[in-house]
Amino acid sequence: METGKLLTDRVADEIVRSIIGQKLKPGDKLPNEFELAKTLGVGRSTLREAIKTLVSRSVVEIRRGSGTFVSARSGVSEDPLGLEFLTDKVQVATDLLELRFLVEPRLASLAASRCTPEELDDLMHLCDACEKKMLAGDDFSKENTAYHAAIARTSGNVVVPNLAVILCGPPSMLAGTPSQKALEELARTNREILTAIGAHDEMAAYDAMLLHLAQCRRSIAQQSLQ
Amino acid sequence: METGKLLTDRVADEIVRSIIGQKLKPGDKLPNEFELAKTLGVGRSTLREAIKTLVSRSVVEIRRGSGTFVSARSGVSEDPLGLEFLTDKVQVATDLLELRFLVEPRLASLAASRCTPEELDDLMHLCDACEKKMLAGDDFSKENTAYHAAIARTSGNVVVPNLAVILCGPPSMLAGTPSQKALEELARTNREILTAIGAHDEMAAYDAMLLHLAQCRRSIAQQSLQ
Repeated sequence: METGKLLTDRVADEIVRSIIGQKLKPGDKLPNEFELAKTLGVGRSTLREAIKTLVSRSVVEIRRGSGTFVSARSGVSEDPLGLEFLTDKVQVATDLLELRFLVEPRLASLAASRCTPEELDDLMHLCDACEKKMLAGDDFSKENTAYHAAIARTSGNVVVPNLAVILCGPPSMLAGTPSQKALEELARTNREILTAIGAHDEMAAYDAMLLHLAQCRRSIAQQSLQ
Repeated sequence: METGKLLTDRVADEIVRSIIGQKLKPGDKLPNEFELAKTLGVGRSTLREAIKTLVSRSVVEIRRGSGTFVSARSGVSEDPLGLEFLTDKVQVATDLLELRFLVEPRLASLAASRCTPEELDDLMHLCDACEKKMLAGDDFSKENTAYHAAIARTSGNVVVPNLAVILCGPPSMLAGTPSQKALEELARTNREILTAIGAHDEMAAYDAMLLHLAQCRRSIAQQSLQ
C-alpha cells in the first residue's frame, strides 16, 4: 500500500483495485464485511470507515439488509466539477452550454455513424419520456440528461458519458421555467436529433444538435430575464 | 433539511451551504468542532462523520493540529469522471484527447481575446516550467496540466478550469514515454499557443492549440505501439 495516506484511504484504494481487478460491474455485490476484513487484513471498524469513504465517492452503495454493491455511478459523484461552489447560476448555465456547443454536435454525429438498432430503440424511449415531460410543462431535467447521456454513450467515446451527466444539468439550476413555445422547440429539436441518428445521417445529427443547443441558449436567456 | 438522506449527509450538505453562504474561500478555516456542532444542533460524532464525508468529496481538508479548512480543490475529486474504472488506458487517453480537440482550441481562442498582462505573465511561467521538464525528458504531466488549466481559466468560462484538470491528464496514464523528437514538438507547440495568446491573435491561438493536440495524438499513437 502507498504510504502518506490514512489507513482508511489506503484500504479504500485497495477495495477499488479489487473491484477493477475482479471486473465487478455496477450492481455486483462485494464480499461481506467479515470476508473483506479478513482478505484485506484490517479490523472491521477500519473496513467500515473505508466503505463509507467509497460511498461518498459514489463507488459503492449500501443497501440496508442486503450488503454493499458496486454503484451504478461508477465513481462519478453528484457534482464532480464542484459547480455547487460557483454562485452565479446564470453564468454557470451559460458556460456549461458553451461547452455543450463544443462537444455535443460532434457526439451526435458519432452516434449517427455507429448507432445499433438496440441503441436506437433505447434513445427512442428516452426521447419519448423527455418529450412527454417537456410538453406537459413538468421538470424534464432528469429525462433530458438521460437522453443526452445516452447519445454521448452511443458515440463510442468512453469518457463522455460521465461528462454528459454534468453538462446537461443546467436547466434545473435556473429559477424560471421555459415558456410553452420554448418547451415545444426543445422537444421538436430533441426529436430531430433522434431522427437523424436513426437515419445514420451524421451531418443532420450534428446540425440538429446545434439547433437544440441554440434553443437551450435562447431559453436560458429568457429565463434569466424573468 | 431534506428528508430521505442519512443524517451525516444532511449535516454535510448544511456545512456546504454555510461555506457557500459565508463566501468562504479555499484555505479559510471552519469554526472549531464545538462551535460547529452547536450551530448545527448535532452531536460531535455526527459532525465528525459529516466532516469525513466532506474530506472525501474534496470540499474540506483537515490539517492535523490546526483544524478544518476549505479545500483548494473546491469539491473536485481526484478522479471526478471515474476514469479509474475504465481499464483500457490507451482508449481512455485517445478519447480524452478527442474531447480536448473539441474544447481546447476554442478555449485558447477565448484566452487570446481577453488575456490580461497578469494572466499572460502567469501563463509564461507555467509554459517555461513545462518546457523545462519536457526538454529534460522528465515527467511533465503536472506542469502541462497546470499550463492548460491556466489557459482554460483565462478563457473566462467558469466551468472549464475544473474540467481541464481532468482532460489534460492522459500522458501519465500511458506506460511508454514520448520520443525526444515528440517532446520537442510538444514543447514548441505549447510555446506557440502562448505567443498567439500574448499577441491577442484568436485564430493563431486556435490553430496552435490544434497543432499541439495533433502532436499529442501522434505521441500517444507512438507510445501505444511501444
